[in-house]
Amino acid sequence: MSKKLIAEFFGTFWLVFGGCGSAIYAAGVADVGIGWLGVSLAFGLTVMTMAYAVGHISGGHFNPAVSLGLMIAGRFESKELIPYWVAQVIGAIAAGVVLYVIASNAAGFSGAGGFASNGYGAASPQGYSLVAGLIAEIVLTAFFLVIILGATSSGAPAGFGPIAIGLGLTLIHLISIPITNTSVNPARSTGVALFADAPALGQLWLFWVAPLIGAALGAVIWKAMSDE
Amino acid sequence: MSKKLIAEFFGTFWLVFGGCGSAIYAAGVADVGIGWLGVSLAFGLTVMTMAYAVGHISGGHFNPAVSLGLMIAGRFESKELIPYWVAQVIGAIAAGVVLYVIASNAAGFSGAGGFASNGYGAASPQGYSLVAGLIAEIVLTAFFLVIILGATSSGAPAGFGPIAIGLGLTLIHLISIPITNTSVNPARSTGVALFADAPALGQLWLFWVAPLIGAALGAVIWKAMSDE
Amino acid sequence: MSKKLIAEFFGTFWLVFGGCGSAIYAAGVADVGIGWLGVSLAFGLTVMTMAYAVGHISGGHFNPAVSLGLMIAGRFESKELIPYWVAQVIGAIAAGVVLYVIASNAAGFSGAGGFASNGYGAASPQGYSLVAGLIAEIVLTAFFLVIILGATSSGAPAGFGPIAIGLGLTLIHLISIPITNTSVNPARSTGVALFADAPALGQLWLFWVAPLIGAALGAVIWKAMSDE
Amino acid sequence: MSKKLIAEFFGTFWLVFGGCGSAIYAAGVADVGIGWLGVSLAFGLTVMTMAYAVGHISGGHFNPAVSLGLMIAGRFESKELIPYWVAQVIGAIAAGVVLYVIASNAAGFSGAGGFASNGYGAASPQGYSLVAGLIAEIVLTAFFLVIILGATSSGAPAGFGPIAIGLGLTLIHLISIPITNTSVNPARSTGVALFADAPALGQLWLFWVAPLIGAALGAVIWKAMSDE
Repeated sequence: MSKKLIAEFFGTFWLVFGGCGSAIYAAGVADVGIGWLGVSLAFGLTVMTMAYAVGHISGGHFNPAVSLGLMIAGRFESKELIPYWVAQVIGAIAAGVVLYVIASNAAGFSGAGGFASNGYGAASPQGYSLVAGLIAEIVLTAFFLVIILGATSSGAPAGFGPIAIGLGLTLIHLISIPITNTSVNPARSTGVALFADAPALGQLWLFWVAPLIGAALGAVIWKAMSDE
Repeated sequence: MSKKLIAEFFGTFWLVFGGCGSAIYAAGVADVGIGWLGVSLAFGLTVMTMAYAVGHISGGHFNPAVSLGLMIAGRFESKELIPYWVAQVIGAIAAGVVLYVIASNAAGFSGAGGFASNGYGAASPQGYSLVAGLIAEIVLTAFFLVIILGATSSGAPAGFGPIAIGLGLTLIHLISIPITNTSVNPARSTGVALFADAPALGQLWLFWVAPLIGAALGAVIWKAMSDE
Repeated sequence: MSKKLIAEFFGTFWLVFGGCGSAIYAAGVADVGIGWLGVSLAFGLTVMTMAYAVGHISGGHFNPAVSLGLMIAGRFESKELIPYWVAQVIGAIAAGVVLYVIASNAAGFSGAGGFASNGYGAASPQGYSLVAGLIAEIVLTAFFLVIILGATSSGAPAGFGPIAIGLGLTLIHLISIPITNTSVNPARSTGVALFADAPALGQLWLFWVAPLIGAALGAVIWKAMSDE
Repeated sequence: MSKKLIAEFFGTFWLVFGGCGSAIYAAGVADVGIGWLGVSLAFGLTVMTMAYAVGHISGGHFNPAVSLGLMIAGRFESKELIPYWVAQVIGAIAAGVVLYVIASNAAGFSGAGGFASNGYGAASPQGYSLVAGLIAEIVLTAFFLVIILGATSSGAPAGFGPIAIGLGLTLIHLISIPITNTSVNPARSTGVALFADAPALGQLWLFWVAPLIGAALGAVIWKAMSDE
């Protein structure tokens, strides 16, 4: 496996382990729990930290939708897309395994439950419909790509990209955890859906379709406003 | 439409969609909701992320008061003021539309309610009067402009402007959400007032008048302490 | 008044207005209030934002203890100490005036109360004694100076100082709001003690003595570990 | 004592004083307490602030596991390992002393209690077993080292290391406070275990063994994906 793919594997592992782990273990604890604000920060910091650590190795995608958007924007070679996707999904699933092993070693464990999976309708944290989830995931992934493409463009100050991108993901979670539990990343959704109770796996298609559409849209928007 | 105006349209869309969206969907949820701290962070991150992404295209105003203050300080051409204002307000209203569509697709939706609009008197989150709202919005917008003008001046370290400006907006929200629900941005106020229950639209004038006065004051303060 | 002193006046105004304002208006509101975490962030962001905005004008002290520590460390001229202190204290008091005017325009206002003042014994938020307050303020101000001196030294990466210093002040508040309501800044303590109920003014001496001792200690510690 | 060791002493003092202090004094206060989110931020900011302040003096380890991992990765001389460990542990214990003195000066003090110590089984905040704690501490310390090694490597943008590393430690706490109260740092665990009620001291071995294994693993992972 190339160094790039190793970096994408570990980066996506970290995104799922850190983001979903904070949600599973720490979000809902009474009084001192970190809540959705803490989970939002955790997801963002997984990307910020790994983008600084290994971004210069693999580009720091950690997300199949990001890889697609970068490819459409002409920043990423199409022949690398599938290998990246595979490394990302395997990394996400590996994180799901470790998350499950730790969770099952807690007092009173009685099954994975939602396991930080994404969902719509009755599986949405606040009961948002499929349409709401579709719109939210498309819009948010589109802006995520605009942030990524813009903050790493030649016109932007060098070195600050991971801050803008990581905290952009935090922002996306602050908006949309109530709606879909926030995906914008098909690998993240897949990594925990395999362990979660129904209907996570049956609804997983939306969290591939919507982020991929959104990422393509984001690349188009970026091209409309930049000189690239 | 020029690339600058496209950038201002999408940047202001993002400010309203992200800032007001986090307030509408995620702030008040029991136990795990993000509260005013999360909303404050969300507003700031909309500006930080878009300033890194498209700041080099349009200057990254996303706010009619900011455009005015920059013009008074001699950093922005007066002939561009009205086109910027139009792009910003249209972007804000477009965000209001999408916010409403998503909100109306939630279980138990029964109308827009306050819809993260700004207000004073009985419409202030904690019952602050018109006078309190006027003072707060003027003072806070003035300091917002001082931060913007100072952090992007030639004496400040390059590249850090979006961090100072974005987190400055977070700080402004930490202070004043209880007072007016925090505007300092007439476009943001307009974008949601159109959808909110009364008296949001009837009180909208204050959130044009006070931020514009404050921005002018901020430009004057900056000139008094700098060599510009 | 020189540009330096104008910058110190407005910077200290902002520190007190933003930090204490967030505490007075937003900290204790039920359910959505920002709590001590939000107040800690607000204090830190006042310094971060103004250090980026006007740090290149005045050095960005906004705090008599910081000015003293920088003087002892050889980074600030002794003849400027008293003018800086005067500008800082006047800025802090001016902020107290505006904070009071806004507070008194809220529904159900019935007096300033604690008004975010500092205290020990029965006036400590969690009942910490004078000795605890003295130790905490000395230790925390000492480390604040180490952070300031270190992060702005020639060995540290350029431009990041305001992030380290501002978030250092956030950290200091995360530790010590329960103990003294956190001063480490005699101007901040003075600016609100004038408006607060007893015993704030009678206890104000500690929040001059301890931060000044701590700042001197911090300068000594820094010199012991650096080549300055 | 060399300047490097003085820097490590004070840096580790600050890590324990700030991180554990925020947990002991401020985390669990009703309504306005900072919770685990605030504690997570505090730990991260201790490292970020001191890495900017004294990182250029000592490298800014403040953690025996970090020193070991850097040595294995070839970034730190083996002859310096034991002196660093000694300075770190003494700094951590000194912080524990000051934390205890302040705590014992609060109204209603009745003993140190858990004193922010680390634990597993019945001593885990949410009842996670020894196995869960072992896995979590190994995985999290490994990623901490990947972040440190990557973000300070020649390929990463200069100057941003302390942000990635400090907020990486925040992220680690957001995930694992419920599991072990988060160590990833044997000095931090030792500094408070000496004062905490049983079984902190009897479980301390795990918080030396697991972070050291994790740090070694992190160094190996880093070498697998980089050109070092």
